[in-house]
Amino acid sequence: MSDAGVAIGVDVGGTKVLGAVVDRDGCVLEEHRVYSPAGWAELRGAIVGVVDELRVRVPEVRALGVGAAGMVDREGVIHYSPNVLGFRKAPVRADLEAATDLAVTVDNDANVAAYAEVKLGVARGATDALVITLGTGIGGGVIVDGRVLRGAHGFAAEVGHFQVDPDGPLCACGERGHWEAMASGSALGRMGREAATAGDAPSVLAAAGGAVEEVAGVHVSAAAHARAPDALAIVDRYSYNVAIGLVGLANIFDPSLIAIAGGLVKDGELFLGPIRTHFLGHIEGADYRPAPEIVTAAFGERAGVVGAALLALDARR
Amino acid sequence: MSDAGVAIGVDVGGTKVLGAVVDRDGCVLEEHRVYSPAGWAELRGAIVGVVDELRVRVPEVRALGVGAAGMVDREGVIHYSPNVLGFRKAPVRADLEAATDLAVTVDNDANVAAYAEVKLGVARGATDALVITLGTGIGGGVIVDGRVLRGAHGFAAEVGHFQVDPDGPLCACGERGHWEAMASGSALGRMGREAATAGDAPSVLAAAGGAVEEVAGVHVSAAAHARAPDALAIVDRYSYNVAIGLVGLANIFDPSLIAIAGGLVKDGELFLGPIRTHFLGHIEGADYRPAPEIVTAAFGERAGVVGAALLALDARR
Repeated sequence: MSDAGVAIGVDVGGTKVLGAVVDRDGCVLEEHRVYSPAGWAELRGAIVGVVDELRVRVPEVRALGVGAAGMVDREGVIHYSPNVLGFRKAPVRADLEAATDLAVTVDNDANVAAYAEVKLGVARGATDALVITLGTGIGGGVIVDGRVLRGAHGFAAEVGHFQVDPDGPLCACGERGHWEAMASGSALGRMGREAATAGDAPSVLAAAGGAVEEVAGVHVSAAAHARAPDALAIVDRYSYNVAIGLVGLANIFDPSLIAIAGGLVKDGELFLGPIRTHFLGHIEGADYRPAPEIVTAAFGERAGVVGAALLALDARR
Repeated sequence: MSDAGVAIGVDVGGTKVLGAVVDRDGCVLEEHRVYSPAGWAELRGAIVGVVDELRVRVPEVRALGVGAAGMVDREGVIHYSPNVLGFRKAPVRADLEAATDLAVTVDNDANVAAYAEVKLGVARGATDALVITLGTGIGGGVIVDGRVLRGAHGFAAEVGHFQVDPDGPLCACGERGHWEAMASGSALGRMGREAATAGDAPSVLAAAGGAVEEVAGVHVSAAAHARAPDALAIVDRYSYNVAIGLVGLANIFDPSLIAIAGGLVKDGELFLGPIRTHFLGHIEGADYRPAPEIVTAAFGERAGVVGAALLALDARR
């Protein structure tokens, strides 16, 4: 059996299952997505459906990599995920190998995003770097001494889950004021809805068609791109929340580079500018150290599918 | 010149300079301590004084290891320390080699404590472990995949400096509500003084001889050992502060073991018991993962001097 040189990468999050056929250069050849259902049986069905669709388009695929928003052990079992209800001791690798007859690799979604950036992206050559995914939750992939940080059991780099504010909003994991609850993509939407409810965000509300309950992060971004002051104020507060967590992680890991992945990447400097400013205002010993660069991940929204596919291709060597 | 098999380890903190002659088995043969003066010239003089005193007692010493509470780069320059004013771009290794004519190794105090625990202590054999020093500040030594985490520039593992509470007390680094400001040994003393000032800690105040401004962590500990409810309440709140930071670090690093070092170690289970209880109540996915053990560091207050000496001995091989 010859190595086709392509693999399917699947990124499983709380909102969507995104699949792609990816080659060794990180190019996305085909792509397919569906919404994430609840429960492992339903989720497994959704993943297999995405894989089957992609295999119709590219039949020579032999390997499947899965990046999932959860605590993945070294056997490919997902023990827990705050945002994906189907991931409760789910035997993801075993079940998907049985269902697809492909060689399956499973890792945390942010770990695979970091793998893509180290192999082919903005972190190429960095010995110590962070890849932070701001999505439904916050995922972290951490490169230490050139390798992906896994921890004693494979559960490391749950970087969204440290307390930033004891009076902050409730996190999906059940704790209060975790960084994820303050700075994920979902948090941006919540901040927009809160401001709209208080009457402080007329332009954001207008962008959402006037319905407070419809306000999401994209409406904050849209109004901010149009330079509406109410939206820019939310962007600034949200960027502060992102920065204050990055400061803690930078003090802990001393990275040379921090790459931001996730849905906000498409807004580029709208968020990155204020994030950098707040970050430099709070990093420990700013006058006495080289500060890490903060950049957008090279693969943007597709870091997860590309990294998962690359991991699957490398696992087959 | 034969290898004497012993080295001097010096632990430089905000309060004291502790030096010891240590052999390859981690045994402390001689010890000497002085208070920490301000300014690098004065501090250098104090360190050299401690080294000279120990060399009178054990003349065959050829190597000196320094563990210092600050950001130490790979050349032995200390760029910054929130708690030791003398450490501002101080060329520690170069100056001490010139002053002592010994081979000098310099690293962060918590890194050297972690080195002692990995080589000879409670973390021996662990691939992923944390050694957390609760002293004037909070120091962290992090073992990732069997090695000490250094970061891109040598400044990693500043684990006391992430925000836990935006309304918390001011940290020595200038930021508000960092974990260090909430959970260092100094923070325990402050909590005792605050409770005494409010009239809520009569037994702690009595232990300090009735003078509020004299209340320190040792008085809280003393009254708590005598089971005074007011002191036990402070111990519980302080232990919660310690635990909530450990939870974040455990979610980030997934260690199999967390060793606590610093002055509180001598109080043993008085603090470790409530720390463990609060920790297990807040770690992410507690029902779905193996939780790390929380234990006292094997070398207790001497982890720093032992680790610094072991690092110096190993550097000479």
